[in-house]
Amino acid sequence: MARKAERNRVTFRPHFKTHQSAAIGSWFRDAGVRAITVSSLEMAQYFAIHGWQDISVAFPANLLEMERIDILAANITLHLLVDSEETVAALDAGLHHDVQAWIKVDVGSRRAGIPWNEPQRFVALARGIRAASHLQFAGLLTHAGHSYDAGSPAEVLEVHGTTHARMGKLRQALEQEGLGPCAVSVGDTPSCSLAETFPAADEIRPGNFVFYDLQQAALGVCDAEDIAVAVACPVVEKSHPRRQLVLYGGAVHLSQEALRDAQGQEVYGALATWMGDTWGTANQEAKLVSVSQEHGVVTVDSAAFDAVDVGDLVVVLPVHSCLTSDLYGEYCTLDGERLSRRRSNDRT
Amino acid sequence: MARKAERNRVTFRPHFKTHQSAAIGSWFRDAGVRAITVSSLEMAQYFAIHGWQDISVAFPANLLEMERIDILAANITLHLLVDSEETVAALDAGLHHDVQAWIKVDVGSRRAGIPWNEPQRFVALARGIRAASHLQFAGLLTHAGHSYDAGSPAEVLEVHGTTHARMGKLRQALEQEGLGPCAVSVGDTPSCSLAETFPAADEIRPGNFVFYDLQQAALGVCDAEDIAVAVACPVVEKSHPRRQLVLYGGAVHLSQEALRDAQGQEVYGALATWMGDTWGTANQEAKLVSVSQEHGVVTVDSAAFDAVDVGDLVVVLPVHSCLTSDLYGEYCTLDGERLSRRRSNDRT
Repeated sequence: MARKAERNRVTFRPHFKTHQSAAIGSWFRDAGVRAITVSSLEMAQYFAIHGWQDISVAFPANLLEMERIDILAANITLHLLVDSEETVAALDAGLHHDVQAWIKVDVGSRRAGIPWNEPQRFVALARGIRAASHLQFAGLLTHAGHSYDAGSPAEVLEVHGTTHARMGKLRQALEQEGLGPCAVSVGDTPSCSLAETFPAADEIRPGNFVFYDLQQAALGVCDAEDIAVAVACPVVEKSHPRRQLVLYGGAVHLSQEALRDAQGQEVYGALATWMGDTWGTANQEAKLVSVSQEHGVVTVDSAAFDAVDVGDLVVVLPVHSCLTSDLYGEYCTLDGERLSRRRSNDRT
Repeated sequence: MARKAERNRVTFRPHFKTHQSAAIGSWFRDAGVRAITVSSLEMAQYFAIHGWQDISVAFPANLLEMERIDILAANITLHLLVDSEETVAALDAGLHHDVQAWIKVDVGSRRAGIPWNEPQRFVALARGIRAASHLQFAGLLTHAGHSYDAGSPAEVLEVHGTTHARMGKLRQALEQEGLGPCAVSVGDTPSCSLAETFPAADEIRPGNFVFYDLQQAALGVCDAEDIAVAVACPVVEKSHPRRQLVLYGGAVHLSQEALRDAQGQEVYGALATWMGDTWGTANQEAKLVSVSQEHGVVTVDSAAFDAVDVGDLVVVLPVHSCLTSDLYGEYCTLDGERLSRRRSNDRT
């Protein structure tokens, strides 16, 4: 991803919400990364403490955390998302240190941001930002989250093309009003993995690609062999008539993110065999079909059922690696090294 | 619940997986509770450290934690679930201290346990337990988790009636084989909340009732006013054309447990107004309709939309309080007191 960004002369600002680990972050630093993305001020604090000096919080600014914003802004180059006049006014009144302000563009995902096809709202907001004492207008930022709803790589690339066309047009509208330079930041993993060029972008912010997961594999963005994080779960029960395994591995270990398989059944993970020092190929027929708080129920074919005993470990590949990882305080590498991560339930 | 258990002369062994808090546990102790249920050995360790001496781990014994089981068994009265000959053999070989062994009965939920209608398997397993050196045969335990699939209080009570009939019959079968005394333990919150009698039970193990949640309210087990835990979420965006609020409150703050409303839409929480020192009545029309990692999207009626500003706090009532609580390291009471809880991402 770093090489692709370099070829395209765009800044590579990876999203660290997926791994939330200073140790894994250092691998990115080794690849030349200097600027990062996170999704909360708590994550920004964590990475600032670990030496990151240029951090975007790709989440609408939370005005209840004004003091935390100001302290961070005093210490690092802090980028925030703003998408309303109220937010601009509150930040203008509350900040004593400079912040880079990006306007969040809803380029079609309909989750957050100002709709891309209302340019006059962007012009008004950019003017407001430029008039505020501690806000620097940085540009336009979007997350084309609807790429996750695509049914195929071709559809992902269609979303990608539309995103760049819309973002380019919007930048032009702002620059014509004398509001340039206006950078453009994009970055969902499906588009950044599949696309070779980023026509309108100055920076890309993919995150999930560090681990990938079953959702990305189902989209055709990666192969199951590319999935780099998994949960080792003890088998606690075998039910012969149902060919069902019960795992010590439920919602609190995996999250409840589900995919639908070809039969329309919800799937919470796929099994791979634990080989003692690594895991084998994912068995797409060994599906985690239900999770409760601590239990996971797996239906398997006869061969997989016979190959496993109560007391064995099996490996569950996650549907959404960001949410699964968020449930842990550390990772264990296949070499046995422990990599600490931010513990998200130490919320403050 | 303590009074209901007393009236019925059954042991009240509440499930502490819902709150996982020593401070909240002490309220139960004040109500006379001396025996508790948890769903992992880590939880058992946590509560043993906080002075609980009689703990059931209502989860199939995990043979990979033999040493932890043995250390706990040396220090407290530890109850485990067993449901296979392999587990009995492994515990017999691995334990140096006595454990109370319960056989898990699948009374219809089809998640875990031996099916209730195969009495000869229970007889064989109880004999195996009695022959093992450090296992004491305690009885039969079930969780009628299918009460959560009921559509009404009447259906919950039907599941309750069937459960007791089946458990009573199974106990009789074991006692006829000379395997008595054989206690019976039951305990899902819907049945224990709605039923007035527990004909076959020697103990009940409800847990969720300590907080309740929208799922219990939807079942008719409690009113929305009985829900005792919620997440205060900042409003970070208002989208006028869509009458949509974006909350700083997503999957990592609430879990992804969903209910379906009357229109078939998935709902991840309901909004209540934050009044400064408590929350108001739940607005069932203000629904959290999607969650991503940190974002929650709420659709609201005009009155609720106009009543809230960016930077305000709103209160989200959870769909499943056990899973929501599990994402935090502490609770804050409405008096501002902090109650610590086991941090589940300190997994070991």
